[in-house]
Amino acid sequence: MAGRNFLFVPGPTNIPDRIRRAMDIALEDHRAYDFPEFTKPLFADLKKIFRTETGKVFVFPTSGTGGWEASITNTLSPGDKVLQARFGQFSVLWSDLCTRLGMNVINVDVEWGEGVPLEQYREILGADRAHEIKAVLVTHNETATGVTSDVKGVRRILDELKHPALLYVDGVSSIGCIDFRMDEWGVDLAVAGSQKGLMLPTGLGLVCASEKALEATKTAKCVRCFFDFADQARMNADGWFPYTPAMTLIRGLRESVDMLLEEGLDNVYARHHRYAEAVRRAVDAWGLKLCAKDPKWNSDTVSAILVPEGFNSTDVINMAYRRYNLSLGLGLAKVAGKVFRIGHLGDLNELMVLAALSGAEMAMRDVGIGIEPGSGVGAAQEYLRSTATTR
Amino acid sequence: MAGRNFLFVPGPTNIPDRIRRAMDIALEDHRAYDFPEFTKPLFADLKKIFRTETGKVFVFPTSGTGGWEASITNTLSPGDKVLQARFGQFSVLWSDLCTRLGMNVINVDVEWGEGVPLEQYREILGADRAHEIKAVLVTHNETATGVTSDVKGVRRILDELKHPALLYVDGVSSIGCIDFRMDEWGVDLAVAGSQKGLMLPTGLGLVCASEKALEATKTAKCVRCFFDFADQARMNADGWFPYTPAMTLIRGLRESVDMLLEEGLDNVYARHHRYAEAVRRAVDAWGLKLCAKDPKWNSDTVSAILVPEGFNSTDVINMAYRRYNLSLGLGLAKVAGKVFRIGHLGDLNELMVLAALSGAEMAMRDVGIGIEPGSGVGAAQEYLRSTATTR
Amino acid sequence: MAGRNFLFVPGPTNIPDRIRRAMDIALEDHRAYDFPEFTKPLFADLKKIFRTETGKVFVFPTSGTGGWEASITNTLSPGDKVLQARFGQFSVLWSDLCTRLGMNVINVDVEWGEGVPLEQYREILGADRAHEIKAVLVTHNETATGVTSDVKGVRRILDELKHPALLYVDGVSSIGCIDFRMDEWGVDLAVAGSQKGLMLPTGLGLVCASEKALEATKTAKCVRCFFDFADQARMNADGWFPYTPAMTLIRGLRESVDMLLEEGLDNVYARHHRYAEAVRRAVDAWGLKLCAKDPKWNSDTVSAILVPEGFNSTDVINMAYRRYNLSLGLGLAKVAGKVFRIGHLGDLNELMVLAALSGAEMAMRDVGIGIEPGSGVGAAQEYLRSTATTR
Amino acid sequence: MAGRNFLFVPGPTNIPDRIRRAMDIALEDHRAYDFPEFTKPLFADLKKIFRTETGKVFVFPTSGTGGWEASITNTLSPGDKVLQARFGQFSVLWSDLCTRLGMNVINVDVEWGEGVPLEQYREILGADRAHEIKAVLVTHNETATGVTSDVKGVRRILDELKHPALLYVDGVSSIGCIDFRMDEWGVDLAVAGSQKGLMLPTGLGLVCASEKALEATKTAKCVRCFFDFADQARMNADGWFPYTPAMTLIRGLRESVDMLLEEGLDNVYARHHRYAEAVRRAVDAWGLKLCAKDPKWNSDTVSAILVPEGFNSTDVINMAYRRYNLSLGLGLAKVAGKVFRIGHLGDLNELMVLAALSGAEMAMRDVGIGIEPGSGVGAAQEYLRSTATTR
Repeated sequence: MAGRNFLFVPGPTNIPDRIRRAMDIALEDHRAYDFPEFTKPLFADLKKIFRTETGKVFVFPTSGTGGWEASITNTLSPGDKVLQARFGQFSVLWSDLCTRLGMNVINVDVEWGEGVPLEQYREILGADRAHEIKAVLVTHNETATGVTSDVKGVRRILDELKHPALLYVDGVSSIGCIDFRMDEWGVDLAVAGSQKGLMLPTGLGLVCASEKALEATKTAKCVRCFFDFADQARMNADGWFPYTPAMTLIRGLRESVDMLLEEGLDNVYARHHRYAEAVRRAVDAWGLKLCAKDPKWNSDTVSAILVPEGFNSTDVINMAYRRYNLSLGLGLAKVAGKVFRIGHLGDLNELMVLAALSGAEMAMRDVGIGIEPGSGVGAAQEYLRSTATTR
Repeated sequence: MAGRNFLFVPGPTNIPDRIRRAMDIALEDHRAYDFPEFTKPLFADLKKIFRTETGKVFVFPTSGTGGWEASITNTLSPGDKVLQARFGQFSVLWSDLCTRLGMNVINVDVEWGEGVPLEQYREILGADRAHEIKAVLVTHNETATGVTSDVKGVRRILDELKHPALLYVDGVSSIGCIDFRMDEWGVDLAVAGSQKGLMLPTGLGLVCASEKALEATKTAKCVRCFFDFADQARMNADGWFPYTPAMTLIRGLRESVDMLLEEGLDNVYARHHRYAEAVRRAVDAWGLKLCAKDPKWNSDTVSAILVPEGFNSTDVINMAYRRYNLSLGLGLAKVAGKVFRIGHLGDLNELMVLAALSGAEMAMRDVGIGIEPGSGVGAAQEYLRSTATTR
Repeated sequence: MAGRNFLFVPGPTNIPDRIRRAMDIALEDHRAYDFPEFTKPLFADLKKIFRTETGKVFVFPTSGTGGWEASITNTLSPGDKVLQARFGQFSVLWSDLCTRLGMNVINVDVEWGEGVPLEQYREILGADRAHEIKAVLVTHNETATGVTSDVKGVRRILDELKHPALLYVDGVSSIGCIDFRMDEWGVDLAVAGSQKGLMLPTGLGLVCASEKALEATKTAKCVRCFFDFADQARMNADGWFPYTPAMTLIRGLRESVDMLLEEGLDNVYARHHRYAEAVRRAVDAWGLKLCAKDPKWNSDTVSAILVPEGFNSTDVINMAYRRYNLSLGLGLAKVAGKVFRIGHLGDLNELMVLAALSGAEMAMRDVGIGIEPGSGVGAAQEYLRSTATTR
Repeated sequence: MAGRNFLFVPGPTNIPDRIRRAMDIALEDHRAYDFPEFTKPLFADLKKIFRTETGKVFVFPTSGTGGWEASITNTLSPGDKVLQARFGQFSVLWSDLCTRLGMNVINVDVEWGEGVPLEQYREILGADRAHEIKAVLVTHNETATGVTSDVKGVRRILDELKHPALLYVDGVSSIGCIDFRMDEWGVDLAVAGSQKGLMLPTGLGLVCASEKALEATKTAKCVRCFFDFADQARMNADGWFPYTPAMTLIRGLRESVDMLLEEGLDNVYARHHRYAEAVRRAVDAWGLKLCAKDPKWNSDTVSAILVPEGFNSTDVINMAYRRYNLSLGLGLAKVAGKVFRIGHLGDLNELMVLAALSGAEMAMRDVGIGIEPGSGVGAAQEYLRSTATTR
């Protein structure tokens, strides 16, 4: 097939050529005397991505799921109470992981399309006078439904209640894309993956831990070894790793961090917002709805679009892929068949977004959804034009 | 800037990843005993791209301009009469090159937007009873105006008149994209470049010579050395080159030829036609005109689109590039400011074409051309949908 | 610095250009309908690398350490008795990991330079009438000392004693390099890493489990989630993964497996033996000794070379790296300062090995070790010549 | 075959990873408004490589042979007298090219193994009172014999005689490797190729012209078009090219120039001298002789080594390649079968050189040449150690 696949799943994302080249290297001795000259500045700069000065970033050769596991096992003990809101496949899976790791999970089920229910969190935490809840989990950006939650709001509640629970954030599809502030929001554990906003292949799980979280590791009794923070911290301090690091990915990470910092995180967030808004203008023009129930939940990294009654979103996705080489995100679990997702995160530009919208239009028409050809593209164009800058 | 440039100049074109990887190699000894095991099958397969069984393909480390020069200097002598029709920047340049190389060029000037004027060629050649005209030149696809000429028709005239002149074809922007048949059409010298339908970087000029053309080299008195066919032929016969070959490009050429033959040349031509037609549907929907004066001249590799009176096409091109990272082709010479060109050749797919149309729509609106947003994209979508295949 | 680093640590190893290119790809949708067309044959072929027909291979985005953890947590329960011989840094670390994961480890300490003590294993296992020992661990190739142990011998003991313990093999620096036979030797869990014989970057941990091991997972009570075999098995069955797979590495793995199977595993083993033997001839010619106490322990993937009394091997390693861009393996833990290691595994040829020996000679002389310049290289040359084949 | 080919022909040379990556790019629009921001600094920096302030560097998509042709056709007229000394295959070929281009060549034949005969040049030029000799050619480094000539000495003669002939230098295998000074030595035309000291693939021919040479273009009557300086100069002035430039190679050239200037040309020359000297120490230790008749002719980029009577150097080369994947340079023309050549230019380091010497030792012994195994390597090691620096 001629031309490139248009990759619009909400991760993995497109690897920029700069990063692709940065990873196209010979392997190296990770015990060479000058190796720390590379790692130490990288660890320092990674903190900027998480917007922390006091936290510490751990880089594991793993996936986002491994990052979840690392955040839990390093800071909690079997039987600890964990509060989690479930409103999409990824918040469900994180909750399941906690249960399987021996946590006592208090699940708050919310309709898919909404985010973390601040009032319910307030009630539950307020009622927890004994401070038995040790962990409060927030899926910052629920990738399955295109919903962004209010992390800062959760912190405010904890502060107001003077509740000492640690605040855990799944930032896999938000960090490096949409506003996230480790220190300012008082996040204790933040999890990121390499294949989203960091524009890298899958294979690195990054976990940022606050000082309070690091303190908690000392009493946390969960069994851990591969994911142990202490091993990493001890070796990282001098620029080393406790076992062989995934150097092609880590060299790519260096380039990724450079690119994000060169652009400026606020500009990166604004870029993501702009493309997300263009997609939303198209959805409006098509006369369709997002899975997100209210604009305040709108995600700037992924839009889950509801197909009209009587249509199966999987058919749209298959058409898009099999006819136009466009990869859209499947509807997962509860929303299988109901939504198709457009991931608009990472290394994208205007024309890539418009190409994806074109492909979605064609695929929808192919299955009989009566949208007007070019309507969404046209609406998105007008928004993009009105916000364009000239180099 | 995030994302990739959308390269829609009519060459250089996009390098497919397969070819990019095939060129990403260590250099090699081009005098190794087993080197001919690589070159001999390549020379054989290159003939298939030109659709010749009796011709010979020469591969020079040069550009298309070098290919032009090679075709002339190897087969003609100073003062020889050459017939050329001029109807765009590239036919003009080829004519100039002939003059500079000492040829006596009979220029037939045709309005830009038309192609080779068969009747005028017939008149001139018919009047040339003494067969003083040694070379008849045809710019198969005039890249400046998006016009494809009738090579077969020129051959028919030569045959009808029993005129012995050699038939030269500039196929730089046609070979490997649109129907070209060396043997069937009786072409004597065909010139191709690496950076168009072959989907490679610039750096190789390919010239295919018929047996009659090779015979002509024996009496051709133009001075030549670097471009000498005889040196190449003598060394190529055993799989070698007379001087160091450009191996990264030639290894890429092997992959390119594989890709074209795997897809099948007829399928390659059909793919180019389909994308060209999609672009033309968009132009129609915009209410604009092509530079090509009549559908019979329409090029399947490049469309030159006339902007309405009162607008400057260079402004459109600058907007497209500076705001949306879309590279469109400039209007050249006589049509500077009047046309912008969309190259739709090489490694493209539906969404890439629709992205370019989106970018053109935005850029046109940015300069004030009142087309309807999404109108061209929608029309192209409908055509593409109606002709789509499912993998 | 001009030229390439000569990477002679015993992993990571050199990435062949074929694999480097195979990984230099755009990312892909791991949920595309045709994705299993890629994964299913890969899973089938991976079994050939482990030489198993009945086992199942799991591919985790992790390191060899993660592979160790996966093998233990999936098949054992806290408090289970585990037998491990310690005779080098990596057998020590695997033992430590078992302890940290809650196992009751019976450590048999053997002098560094020897391998698994069959007679002691026989005694301990023979005395274990109650079959409390659930796991017998063998570090097939101890990378710290250059010692290869007799896995088959351990299986024979278990069989003779009719002891039902599972047999675990750390094959990180042996599988894909030296003779390893999952089925024939009755191995239950074998761990491999991507960055050794598989010639890939670090980032994949591969674990092969026998049917008996898979049966054991049903009663194993160790907490596990990221490394859970059952999640993988359920998804792998249809060609999927339970979480985002590390596709650049996995695409590289496909190429690696192709290369190994094209060469033939027996030829791969023979190649490794030949280069190892060349290194040993050099060590002899230098008048030095290997850390391996007896030829039967000689490793074909890494040689740990003892520096003479009064010298510090770290000085040799630093000289090699800082003067000649040669990366040799450090002496670790008990043998720090006493040995330097030459890794001779993966994608190597004769001249690479001779280059490393040259670098070692220069570095040794630089620190005052009185070997004869060229002596080791000459001895290795003569051995390599006597065993050379002509293409 | 495992491992990499050791490429020790005297060009093409090894591409450093930095340059390989710099060329692994998407193509670009060479007519984009910001394109000159890239080209203008490149043209400026290229002058530094030639060590000129007043000269102009032309970059053609061609080979070194094309560079030769460009230098001649732009500055001379048919029948012009040209003085050339022939002492190896490349000086012979350049002379032939001049003859084929219509020059009246005065050939001075010198024994192969010597360089430009200053006294004969003085005599001939001194006798040319009428200044009919328009061009004096010097093959700076004769790649076939490993001989470097005294360019400065030729300039001194011209100056002493006040002879106005232009001084042409073939610097294909010297520029960017060994001392070359355009301005200081009064060179008028210098030719370089991409695949030698510039460490790029073949495909670019660079010609540097002095102001005097540019003046000569105005009256030079040789037919030229593709290679015309004037077209280039007119377009280059604003950062453009007259026809599509070979951008992958030119982007690589940017990186190459950066690398050479970062290292410093004097350091580059010193590095080449050091490796050349190491090779010569090995040749001495083997008891063999160079083709160069006197140390003053020794080339620092290539050593042509005479095999003893009764042996055929082609057998050595075949053994080296077919058994040890080492590419050595063939003996060409007069010295076919008599010499094998080790190219020691471009991106090399100590261990690469020692590997090549090891391969040469093995191949020589394989054909029965009775050198001592390791003897050359050992001698080279000692020299390299004595001149090593520590990073």
